[in-house]
Amino acid sequence: MHETHVSLEGLKRYFSKDAFAELCGIEIIEAGPGSARVRLAVDGRHLNSLGMVHGGVLFTLADMAFAVAAHSRGKSAVAINTAISFMKAGRTEMLFAEAREVSRNRRLATYTVQVTDSLGDALILFQGTVYIRAESIHDTPE
Amino acid sequence: MHETHVSLEGLKRYFSKDAFAELCGIEIIEAGPGSARVRLAVDGRHLNSLGMVHGGVLFTLADMAFAVAAHSRGKSAVAINTAISFMKAGRTEMLFAEAREVSRNRRLATYTVQVTDSLGDALILFQGTVYIRAESIHDTPE
Amino acid sequence: MHETHVSLEGLKRYFSKDAFAELCGIEIIEAGPGSARVRLAVDGRHLNSLGMVHGGVLFTLADMAFAVAAHSRGKSAVAINTAISFMKAGRTEMLFAEAREVSRNRRLATYTVQVTDSLGDALILFQGTVYIRAESIHDTPE
Amino acid sequence: MHETHVSLEGLKRYFSKDAFAELCGIEIIEAGPGSARVRLAVDGRHLNSLGMVHGGVLFTLADMAFAVAAHSRGKSAVAINTAISFMKAGRTEMLFAEAREVSRNRRLATYTVQVTDSLGDALILFQGTVYIRAESIHDTPE
Repeated sequence: MHETHVSLEGLKRYFSKDAFAELCGIEIIEAGPGSARVRLAVDGRHLNSLGMVHGGVLFTLADMAFAVAAHSRGKSAVAINTAISFMKAGRTEMLFAEAREVSRNRRLATYTVQVTDSLGDALILFQGTVYIRAESIHDTPE
Repeated sequence: MHETHVSLEGLKRYFSKDAFAELCGIEIIEAGPGSARVRLAVDGRHLNSLGMVHGGVLFTLADMAFAVAAHSRGKSAVAINTAISFMKAGRTEMLFAEAREVSRNRRLATYTVQVTDSLGDALILFQGTVYIRAESIHDTPE
Repeated sequence: MHETHVSLEGLKRYFSKDAFAELCGIEIIEAGPGSARVRLAVDGRHLNSLGMVHGGVLFTLADMAFAVAAHSRGKSAVAINTAISFMKAGRTEMLFAEAREVSRNRRLATYTVQVTDSLGDALILFQGTVYIRAESIHDTPE
Repeated sequence: MHETHVSLEGLKRYFSKDAFAELCGIEIIEAGPGSARVRLAVDGRHLNSLGMVHGGVLFTLADMAFAVAAHSRGKSAVAINTAISFMKAGRTEMLFAEAREVSRNRRLATYTVQVTDSLGDALILFQGTVYIRAESIHDTPE
């Protein structure tokens, strides 16, 4: 299957319109065909009532890596389902999420994402599937 | 099992320390033993690059109902896992999440959460399990 | 949406070709548009090394209710994903699984399934999504 | 953490009491600290009404690798939750499941499992968490 591969710059431009990722402060740092790496500098706004990084922040970080990887082949895609195991509380200042494609056909693609802290410990393990839409992400006006 | 039931006011006070829920703008509106209902008034900050409510917002809204329901019996708890099916894109101005307890023993409790829009349509179906900690939420200094 | 609703007899005939469900001993007992109820009489073949009903049996029972409900509208469908929370060990002689449709569009449908024992206690909570195929199940030669 | 590592022979002996795994015909072929590999020779009993390997068989195969890996450190454990993405239908004669530990603490451990066919293609991606019990699997009378 010959699908276009979108450059890191193209993906950054596309996701620059993602208001919630911007509110959270998530940055895309790497992307390749079917893969992506994003990061977040944790501050007080990201914490829950126990003083740990909020589950919603960990989800959003993983979801961003998932979305960038899913869009890296040039087609728009929407999440169908995600599953998360929470393994360690987030307490460090920098968090990373890395997504990897496990399978992709014409309509569905599945990714696994791991969120790690700056000690390299895994905080969450995430897997999710997207439905691939007809639209190309290049069609989007800048 | 006789566990203390925390009042809606007590749960609101406890979760008032949740900085990320506050950043998102999530409000607790109902809580009972093992159940909770929360809501969110959607604005531009909550959207993704397609102009739909971001998956991270839908997760965080469901997660808040899950957390409030899990804490309603007076014990602190942390999420172990969650699974989500995304069924409809969020486009309305008000979203609701409602959590219901399916089982609870001394260490583990499982909840189901549905996020609906103001048309009453289901946007996401969520299920998750928490590990119940020894600490009572009443011990937390105000 | 006007989709054909398949009768309980039609669904039983279709699933009579399911060799693994037959090996396990699962029986379809009710079906309606988007819903299904199946049961299993537990015997020694269904147990794991701890003497409890095997997780694979609980999954297969839930999956059968899921599949029957997903096929009840007359279209063939394949599972994309499932998530399970295991809440109580299975120790009674009769187990039931009941599936309920949460959403359905042209391509995707999501179901929730609960497996209960003869005491009425919930053993597992299951949610899953199918991809709806073009084929009608009526096309299948008997 | 110094936990006993159980030998492949010890794990095979322990799981030889798993009646449902035996009914299905699953064989343990490798095990190490936190990892396991199992296989299944597919025959007509494993198929669903579409003639593909039944989802319940794929689950049970993955679950077996998960269970063996979770028991490899010498403690009995029970599944709390599992999530599966179904990526390709099973049609070949030999299937394999391989489990890998992602995290483990005193009470909880999380594994990822991939089921592949004899072409090396991934059929399902599975992740799951166990609750670790007090009992050692060595305590079990042979």
